[in-house]
Amino acid sequence: MSLKGTLTEIVENVAGGRAVVIMASDGIPIDQVVVDEGSFDLQLLSVEYATLLGDIRRAVELLKVGEMEEVSTTSGDMCVVLRVLSQELFVILVMDRDASLGKGRYLLRLKSYELARMLL
Amino acid sequence: MSLKGTLTEIVENVAGGRAVVIMASDGIPIDQVVVDEGSFDLQLLSVEYATLLGDIRRAVELLKVGEMEEVSTTSGDMCVVLRVLSQELFVILVMDRDASLGKGRYLLRLKSYELARMLL
Repeated sequence: MSLKGTLTEIVENVAGGRAVVIMASDGIPIDQVVVDEGSFDLQLLSVEYATLLGDIRRAVELLKVGEMEEVSTTSGDMCVVLRVLSQELFVILVMDRDASLGKGRYLLRLKSYELARMLL
Repeated sequence: MSLKGTLTEIVENVAGGRAVVIMASDGIPIDQVVVDEGSFDLQLLSVEYATLLGDIRRAVELLKVGEMEEVSTTSGDMCVVLRVLSQELFVILVMDRDASLGKGRYLLRLKSYELARMLL
């Protein structure tokens, strides 16, 4: 399956899935599939999460609790799951506030090997 | 139930629960229950997550996606769930890497009203 195909499979299999983006750690987007951009700015979100990942990685390194694998955030309007693919690449899944965060995390973990194989 | 009692109930009801801490957003610990501190530095972890919460709040505000509610992180050695109680207070649950993050998130959400009532 193509990269676009795998990304589509992820976002379409979570009820409330809105977008999925592969990003480089420096904030450059590699590929994305948007189902419902709605009222949020996906480009800004991706760049902000790339910066946050850097912050969290520094904290996790300081705490000596192993390599960073996943971050999820819930705010009033949406859930976001970020999964690390490599030192340089990560994937972000954006979902509605009421979506199943557990299902999103599961799908992203399941597909991360496939995504990593295509990209690394 | 006392604050300590509610914190104990949270950490003892998640298999793999290691510690739970109530913190002020400026990094000052309010109360905590530690089941298994093991090899991590709980004080450093709490302060680092207080800083991260500030970073994530700024991002969420910039993105205009509602108020920050919850953050969870998974690294090689542990899972951490942080839940916002108010602008000034939050609670952190530290679990083993293989613990159920979903159960931890559920318990923290369930008990957050009780904790907020005791503290606010």
